[in-house]
Amino acid sequence: MTVPAGGVTPAGPSADPPARSAAAPAAAQPLPSTRRLGVGMVGYAFMGAAHSQAWRSVNRFFDVPFTIDMAAVVGRTERSVTAAAGKLGWRTYETDWRALLDRDDIDVVDVCTPGDSHAEIAIAALDAGKHVICEKPLANSVAEAEAMTEAATRAQARGTVAMVGFNYRRVPAIALACELTAAGMLGTVRHVRAQYLQDWIVDPDFPLTWRLQRERAGSGALGDIGAHIVDAAQFIVGEPLVGVSGLTETFIRDRPGGTVTVDDCALFLGRFGGGAVATFEATRLATGRKNALRLEINGSGGSLAFDLEEMNELRFYRHGEDPATAGFRRILVTEPSHPYMGAWWPPGHLIGYEHTFTNQARDFLSALGSGTAPSPSFADGLQVQRVLAAVEASAGNRSVWTSTGAPSGAEQT
Amino acid sequence: MTVPAGGVTPAGPSADPPARSAAAPAAAQPLPSTRRLGVGMVGYAFMGAAHSQAWRSVNRFFDVPFTIDMAAVVGRTERSVTAAAGKLGWRTYETDWRALLDRDDIDVVDVCTPGDSHAEIAIAALDAGKHVICEKPLANSVAEAEAMTEAATRAQARGTVAMVGFNYRRVPAIALACELTAAGMLGTVRHVRAQYLQDWIVDPDFPLTWRLQRERAGSGALGDIGAHIVDAAQFIVGEPLVGVSGLTETFIRDRPGGTVTVDDCALFLGRFGGGAVATFEATRLATGRKNALRLEINGSGGSLAFDLEEMNELRFYRHGEDPATAGFRRILVTEPSHPYMGAWWPPGHLIGYEHTFTNQARDFLSALGSGTAPSPSFADGLQVQRVLAAVEASAGNRSVWTSTGAPSGAEQT
Amino acid sequence: MTVPAGGVTPAGPSADPPARSAAAPAAAQPLPSTRRLGVGMVGYAFMGAAHSQAWRSVNRFFDVPFTIDMAAVVGRTERSVTAAAGKLGWRTYETDWRALLDRDDIDVVDVCTPGDSHAEIAIAALDAGKHVICEKPLANSVAEAEAMTEAATRAQARGTVAMVGFNYRRVPAIALACELTAAGMLGTVRHVRAQYLQDWIVDPDFPLTWRLQRERAGSGALGDIGAHIVDAAQFIVGEPLVGVSGLTETFIRDRPGGTVTVDDCALFLGRFGGGAVATFEATRLATGRKNALRLEINGSGGSLAFDLEEMNELRFYRHGEDPATAGFRRILVTEPSHPYMGAWWPPGHLIGYEHTFTNQARDFLSALGSGTAPSPSFADGLQVQRVLAAVEASAGNRSVWTSTGAPSGAEQT
Amino acid sequence: MTVPAGGVTPAGPSADPPARSAAAPAAAQPLPSTRRLGVGMVGYAFMGAAHSQAWRSVNRFFDVPFTIDMAAVVGRTERSVTAAAGKLGWRTYETDWRALLDRDDIDVVDVCTPGDSHAEIAIAALDAGKHVICEKPLANSVAEAEAMTEAATRAQARGTVAMVGFNYRRVPAIALACELTAAGMLGTVRHVRAQYLQDWIVDPDFPLTWRLQRERAGSGALGDIGAHIVDAAQFIVGEPLVGVSGLTETFIRDRPGGTVTVDDCALFLGRFGGGAVATFEATRLATGRKNALRLEINGSGGSLAFDLEEMNELRFYRHGEDPATAGFRRILVTEPSHPYMGAWWPPGHLIGYEHTFTNQARDFLSALGSGTAPSPSFADGLQVQRVLAAVEASAGNRSVWTSTGAPSGAEQT
Repeated sequence: MTVPAGGVTPAGPSADPPARSAAAPAAAQPLPSTRRLGVGMVGYAFMGAAHSQAWRSVNRFFDVPFTIDMAAVVGRTERSVTAAAGKLGWRTYETDWRALLDRDDIDVVDVCTPGDSHAEIAIAALDAGKHVICEKPLANSVAEAEAMTEAATRAQARGTVAMVGFNYRRVPAIALACELTAAGMLGTVRHVRAQYLQDWIVDPDFPLTWRLQRERAGSGALGDIGAHIVDAAQFIVGEPLVGVSGLTETFIRDRPGGTVTVDDCALFLGRFGGGAVATFEATRLATGRKNALRLEINGSGGSLAFDLEEMNELRFYRHGEDPATAGFRRILVTEPSHPYMGAWWPPGHLIGYEHTFTNQARDFLSALGSGTAPSPSFADGLQVQRVLAAVEASAGNRSVWTSTGAPSGAEQT
Repeated sequence: MTVPAGGVTPAGPSADPPARSAAAPAAAQPLPSTRRLGVGMVGYAFMGAAHSQAWRSVNRFFDVPFTIDMAAVVGRTERSVTAAAGKLGWRTYETDWRALLDRDDIDVVDVCTPGDSHAEIAIAALDAGKHVICEKPLANSVAEAEAMTEAATRAQARGTVAMVGFNYRRVPAIALACELTAAGMLGTVRHVRAQYLQDWIVDPDFPLTWRLQRERAGSGALGDIGAHIVDAAQFIVGEPLVGVSGLTETFIRDRPGGTVTVDDCALFLGRFGGGAVATFEATRLATGRKNALRLEINGSGGSLAFDLEEMNELRFYRHGEDPATAGFRRILVTEPSHPYMGAWWPPGHLIGYEHTFTNQARDFLSALGSGTAPSPSFADGLQVQRVLAAVEASAGNRSVWTSTGAPSGAEQT
Repeated sequence: MTVPAGGVTPAGPSADPPARSAAAPAAAQPLPSTRRLGVGMVGYAFMGAAHSQAWRSVNRFFDVPFTIDMAAVVGRTERSVTAAAGKLGWRTYETDWRALLDRDDIDVVDVCTPGDSHAEIAIAALDAGKHVICEKPLANSVAEAEAMTEAATRAQARGTVAMVGFNYRRVPAIALACELTAAGMLGTVRHVRAQYLQDWIVDPDFPLTWRLQRERAGSGALGDIGAHIVDAAQFIVGEPLVGVSGLTETFIRDRPGGTVTVDDCALFLGRFGGGAVATFEATRLATGRKNALRLEINGSGGSLAFDLEEMNELRFYRHGEDPATAGFRRILVTEPSHPYMGAWWPPGHLIGYEHTFTNQARDFLSALGSGTAPSPSFADGLQVQRVLAAVEASAGNRSVWTSTGAPSGAEQT
Repeated sequence: MTVPAGGVTPAGPSADPPARSAAAPAAAQPLPSTRRLGVGMVGYAFMGAAHSQAWRSVNRFFDVPFTIDMAAVVGRTERSVTAAAGKLGWRTYETDWRALLDRDDIDVVDVCTPGDSHAEIAIAALDAGKHVICEKPLANSVAEAEAMTEAATRAQARGTVAMVGFNYRRVPAIALACELTAAGMLGTVRHVRAQYLQDWIVDPDFPLTWRLQRERAGSGALGDIGAHIVDAAQFIVGEPLVGVSGLTETFIRDRPGGTVTVDDCALFLGRFGGGAVATFEATRLATGRKNALRLEINGSGGSLAFDLEEMNELRFYRHGEDPATAGFRRILVTEPSHPYMGAWWPPGHLIGYEHTFTNQARDFLSALGSGTAPSPSFADGLQVQRVLAAVEASAGNRSVWTSTGAPSGAEQT
């Protein structure tokens, strides 16, 4: 005997299951005390694959007040989007993202496209009453990000929410770092050093892709991975960057396919609202470093260190302990008491990259269920955008100190 | 417009989607050029959750010749199994595993129960023509494992296959270690040191569970985690252990709930078929070590080292390189050319614990599709069982050297 | 103006230094409130060089009650020993160690020869009233070690002391490990895993040296480096090994110069007096491991880990800490409060291999000054010898469990 | 029988040694085919202790063309310098450094004083025909450093040489890094990230010392430890820094004893002559970091990473290797083929902090013996000073990009 699940009538490949078997509440049926939530995802490449796995998994590991219906995936090329829908497990597809706005079964629009289309899609979706998750960086310019933030503010008044996808906030070790800092375990923060090192374009024969073109990507390493360390650092420190001194460089300008019009790397000094000083560096030419998002924070009361290539670990030093046994602890962030980890595996069993997106989906759904604004907001994304813009401005003006516009002493959400 | 998917008629929560939308090939519908394969899983605790995520994910990341139908989950307590089915995403449930044997929509029986029921379920399933994946250790005794192996041999003749779930063979770093060894990069292997260190019962107030009772679990650390390092070491070295000298200990005998009747730890010296000497240690009392499955192998031509707590890394030393720059390399096993990793994320993006089960599902499905016997076979599981039995026999006889029965010079599959 | 220094009249190359300069208390002159102590060292190879640097340096860094006079070095070949004396900075040389026994300016005989001459030299020196430091392993057999221990006991009654040179007790991290264990920070010790891994004879063309000949060296890896881990483990745990199950192997028997008659490697299981179980492994064929003396100890209250290749670090885990921030701490053992380190450099400034000998010299001189017996004693060396002998006996008898003769429950000094 | 040694007549404490003993060539006597070289050291604190151990040890480990006579130590307070002379092993002492200039037995003046006296002492010594080793930073200002460099140039013409004591060039791992880079193993260098992190003044109760006063120390972290990373980076890259954008901060201004007048930390972006971009950071407030001089360099052909807290190790990645086994190698820089290490211990046996000074003494003596100018020269020290000055200038001018004066494209010696 089978039962309908979420409006779907799953007959099962075996049309007539034995009487003693019983249909379980199937995947697409809302789980007990949850409501169905239809998601429409725009874009289906790298980010789309990661988001799909998150939407597919979130109900399996977390108790959230919605049951996800992976309703539609959007792509311009029908053949490709059809294949992607099948591969990634979406129920329907569209070839124009605007179609999502008219569909009643779409509650959330998940924007996984390149940065040049974020503003148009996100604003339209919010205005149409769809909740929005938008990949980072929020936009390709401050102006776009401002418009998006305004749209989010308007939407919020109507109960429609927006979130920017800084998924690394959902690395349990980074979330723990934030908790420890917020709890005062680091005392006054004085130093931040943040690096995001990759090497995927170190070969000069690597071709020109959209990520290497300013009109599509906005910037290079700066916006792609620099945005991540800016957000992560502001998230952990709990303060915005108020000023920067920057430098960018494109070491390899000519590639198969054309001229690179974005930076290969961006470096900057920074100052947080509370006075801490910082070095930031984002590069795609750090030979041998594959995905080394590193953060180190020193405060008057302790220090933290993190490397995404060892993403299940956090190093923590507490000042004032007995010097005989003081030292950086390697915290294996897999305990049930660690952020997100109660939902996953026993202590010592690692999680990986895509879990950050599932954790992000959980936070989004929890906020939605409780009627609170999900975090990071578009305003947070705008603040990151302002930092990136200040870096570019400084880099274009002899590295002179440049304000981000964030008030000194402000707190970051 | 919607279309049936895998025999299921998903109407979608929105009964009438816009005409311009089109239904994608949904999750339960066989993907192009694949066949549907119905899985029935017995047990739904820790292993059940991991296997569920694997069955759910395998088609999303790998090209395999079957589309998985998560057809049924089995548990004795209806209330619990119903909840588990909903949570883990199984289409139906059963309260008696025997029901699976009669269902035509069940092609594979996935045994995730404690060790004392492995033999009965697996043998019955194989005899009923169901393919079987059985969690490790294969059984609680050599006799059971022998009967299971015989059943697997009978089944194989009819095209029905059996595999034992040593999932750590599917850690990409361990698979790479196997490849490097097989390719001769280590020369003649002389040393193996294998440890599996956990600490989850170091608190004497931790209660008696089935894993601490001999009649359910067969043995303690020896069978639970010792089995993993025996299999992994034999897998990488490519030879069986032919003799051992063992020692076991139960440091904490009295726990809430009763008397512990299995070992807390097991240590043994061993000899491989090709002459290499080894130390093995499995313990649940290594304070601070959460899931430290460590392997180090030294050969005449090089060395390898691995730690499951850093599961995306493999250390490799190649003898004979220029001494000025020779050293253990930290291989971040996330390149497309590494085992399994082409299906996952870009270089430097980690995978976690449950990916080993998805990788395992892929290997099982690939073997099934190509008509080859999946590996590790029940015979491999039996060989591990014989090693465990020899360790216990030696430990009970003043650690005297004890043969495992495997012929010296034999090769391990 | 110059002044005599320790009986020496240093005129200075400038015969008539300016009146405003003044001679400092020079090296060989006893420092204030110290007495001169003449050392005669037998042997001048690797160990001789290390000991020379220790004798030269000890007064420069430590406050000890004696000023060292590097009085004589002994070697059989006059040309070589002359060169060694000049290079290593000894005041005189001898070609027969017996000459030291008659010299009034020799207070201490420092035995740095291969193991086959330890017993003869040390016993004769002690009987002649000379204090003795003897390199490890104490002897090549239990019988020799027993005779030496008897001689030390006789000598002790006359105020003449003996010490065996297990220099690794003077690695600050190992001394700290001992302190932490003695202070109960590990609770009840349950597990010890000890490895000493080298690779200097992995090349089969490496020639036969005295260390590969049983009649000179007594045993191979077992006595040379296995002795170190046996002593270090007993030192830290504070208990003797009471039984073992052993295995030895010689993988490369034929080398230029003849047949190897000692082990390449030795592995054994062990049991400490207090019940802890252990694995030990010593090998010279661990490709890529240069000097990896590793110790890991797990107790009910915490764990320690050490690797001599990172000798300034100790890993320490304390059970019972807040799980949110618990983890192995990397203690950089360079704080003034750490053993020996107050004499050396500021925090974070490392020490190296030969410092262990200088630290050892300091402990020897402190004991001598205070009239206490220096540690480790010849009795400690004998206990190590008994463990080595038990391992060889077990290895020769199917690895059967073999008592070391040490009483269960005994404490190690 | 005894013989004179280096003009000294060591009689030995035993006035009449046995006839069969023979005096060895003692410490202060020139070793065969060497000449005596008298050293006068000014200052006897931390640096003085390290230099003393170097002068004492250099002849014991290296074959150099001079035998060191530790002739005189200089300090203003007679009681203190007397004690220091005895403790550190100097033959005579002086209370005015000018006394050294008149002494014929002084060939080398070793300047270990605070930075404010470097210029006066070094220039006077050079003008008096004494070879000079001067601790870093070379001076407290560019003007002083220029005057010193001019004095060195004048002296060089007369065969008198000068060297600045950037001892970390003599860390074998750093020297190896330089060799690898010079050999082209890194290809074109694009990124340098250099940090020198300490925490010794993180406690606000730490008192004002000379290092925290501008008139004595010149600057704070910038000149003390920032100078080290500037020199080390320029040394390895083989190019000077041509421009910087800087930021300095004093987080703790009031301390027992008065007001801090130097920086607690200094951060800057930089550009090397060949185009590589860099981040530099020096701080004394990085809680938990004791002596973390870290360098990471990425080039088109490979990468290097180093941390002084693990000073015997160098990480090296070579681009273009088989991706299956590529990875950063942990080179244990203890092989005989590694810089300086042939003189020390067998592979895997570590060296420590003061060995860098012994290695430095060896290089100085080798240069002196061969008639070549020792490196790093005062001109190299001046270049570092110019970088420091540019950082301070930029920090005082809104971080605007500031030239160091070094020509773009120039090579560093």
